[in-house]
Amino acid sequence: MPKFTAEQLIDLGTRIFSAAGAPSEEARLVSEFLVRANLAGHDSHGVIRIIEYVNNIEKGAIRPGAKIEVFRETPSSAILNGNWGFGQVIAKRAMEMAVEKARDGAVGVVCAFNCNHVGRLADYTMIALSNDMIGIAMVNSTRFVAPFGGRDRMLSTGPISFAFPSNLEFPLVVDIATSVVAEGKVRVMLHKGEKIPFGWIIDKDGNPSNDPKDLYDGGALLPLGGDEVGHKGFGLGLAIEILTGILSGAGCAYEESKRGNGIFFEAINIGRFMPIDEFKRKVTELVKAIKSSRPRPGFKEIIIPGEPEYLTEKLRLREGIYVPERTWEEIKSIAKRLGVDGIPE
Amino acid sequence: MPKFTAEQLIDLGTRIFSAAGAPSEEARLVSEFLVRANLAGHDSHGVIRIIEYVNNIEKGAIRPGAKIEVFRETPSSAILNGNWGFGQVIAKRAMEMAVEKARDGAVGVVCAFNCNHVGRLADYTMIALSNDMIGIAMVNSTRFVAPFGGRDRMLSTGPISFAFPSNLEFPLVVDIATSVVAEGKVRVMLHKGEKIPFGWIIDKDGNPSNDPKDLYDGGALLPLGGDEVGHKGFGLGLAIEILTGILSGAGCAYEESKRGNGIFFEAINIGRFMPIDEFKRKVTELVKAIKSSRPRPGFKEIIIPGEPEYLTEKLRLREGIYVPERTWEEIKSIAKRLGVDGIPE
Repeated sequence: MPKFTAEQLIDLGTRIFSAAGAPSEEARLVSEFLVRANLAGHDSHGVIRIIEYVNNIEKGAIRPGAKIEVFRETPSSAILNGNWGFGQVIAKRAMEMAVEKARDGAVGVVCAFNCNHVGRLADYTMIALSNDMIGIAMVNSTRFVAPFGGRDRMLSTGPISFAFPSNLEFPLVVDIATSVVAEGKVRVMLHKGEKIPFGWIIDKDGNPSNDPKDLYDGGALLPLGGDEVGHKGFGLGLAIEILTGILSGAGCAYEESKRGNGIFFEAINIGRFMPIDEFKRKVTELVKAIKSSRPRPGFKEIIIPGEPEYLTEKLRLREGIYVPERTWEEIKSIAKRLGVDGIPE
Repeated sequence: MPKFTAEQLIDLGTRIFSAAGAPSEEARLVSEFLVRANLAGHDSHGVIRIIEYVNNIEKGAIRPGAKIEVFRETPSSAILNGNWGFGQVIAKRAMEMAVEKARDGAVGVVCAFNCNHVGRLADYTMIALSNDMIGIAMVNSTRFVAPFGGRDRMLSTGPISFAFPSNLEFPLVVDIATSVVAEGKVRVMLHKGEKIPFGWIIDKDGNPSNDPKDLYDGGALLPLGGDEVGHKGFGLGLAIEILTGILSGAGCAYEESKRGNGIFFEAINIGRFMPIDEFKRKVTELVKAIKSSRPRPGFKEIIIPGEPEYLTEKLRLREGIYVPERTWEEIKSIAKRLGVDGIPE
């Protein structure tokens, strides 16, 4: 597999998006967010998306340079109309606005609609974190998840992220889908030609399946909690759907016309509740206490949310980012078609 | 089993708490919240708690009539010092204050510390709902849950509730613990002398167990997601712990001195985002679409969060509330000791 430095990939992505018609700032921003996902180890949200994004630009589904309009606003809230620009550009603006509102007040909530795929939520909650605030982010998308006890896809995977400032070496960031697994994990197993564990999906008739193909043949993902306590993941997913699909104005996953991500972002200004240093110290103490508690048989250590991504990033910054052969060939052919030269080998 | 009307139980509870020294308004409020839990079918949070609360009043752990002080405040946020009054009184005030702040602005966040057991979170998010707002509530308590991969209790069960206004017949309320099951479910099985499914708890050595006794013999509850994707429940539980234990000032579950509930409540004023009628209509449409989608084999219908409690309440308002013999004997003996007469039979 070809291997590159982060800077090589960011530069190439930037030039591809620019050649596809994106303003240079947007091209670089989106490219940076994609490569950041590769660095974190989440390759499904990485440079592989260049292919889809260029395709979407050419179809008119992504409109680079689209003006982000403030649809509605109060001192502590806003709704943005993204006008179908890059999701990353809209989402970054939304969290920055939530942070501004929380800086003036104590809390800021910003929603957005007409917004394309935003990528990893952790990237946005970390904007709040780097401003000494708590970041909370949720999005919806198209339908993939059955309600508890149901056979039809009705909800999106309902990801949610929280980020908390601390004195830890790594950023403390939770970023999870409220389905048993994200759809990308099933797709990876499909491409590998492997079976998946029972409990991830049901087939089109609502029966348990361990064949990833069944998800794409009318099946559905199960909500977190699975067969026994899936009402919990369903409840969380439903709440996230309402905040991101209805309150935002972006539309719900179950609607035929649904596309892109509906956004619900929140920033909480810790300084309005307690001194930031005290907060960071207490969070650090909590995490260290958990980290140093005894692992279960079969586990070597207790892994904290945000820790694996941090370790993978350190590794990949040192050793480079592998891009699968087929993905790389596709990216190269797009680059050539758009007249982008100086493709790294 | 003795059976009573809700009004009989509320009246008796009110008179018991009054006799134990509570101001009459607080006595009635707490009694109402307990009976409301019985009506909803959550008997573990119902009149059985009269015994514990009177005990706590006598020990000085609950201080009826304690003044709730505003420790810190901004136009959109506050922290309350509950001074160890009844949890219900403090929590109700906290959500009412969040609603007031959201009415003036768009969002209100209110935390509280020095707060006793608040009971069911749904009771508080429904205060927001009845004000045409979205209610979000989280609390922490003492430690019960192991981190993913760990054998020691480090987190509380981290319950979270969301309530959304709609035109549905029942209130749309999510109210779940972020452990696989709430501690009360294990306790019920212990009292019944039955085994529990594997995947709920680990024993003191971190091994899987189906014996509920093992939880109380140094074991721990597992986070939602269990052995396979328990990092999700752990992540959610950790986020809730930080918001309710650190941001609130109430202290974390893992601390030896921890008691009572730390509170993080939020109200979102829907009218600042969209017309309330439109919101209610869209939520109703979403839920009806889910409700009318096809059930899986083995399920008769799709149950929506808040629906079972509503149906149980209708039933129990009609047919009365059963109180287990032993619980009733204990309540009667407390009533007699406190000189409360007119105990229903």
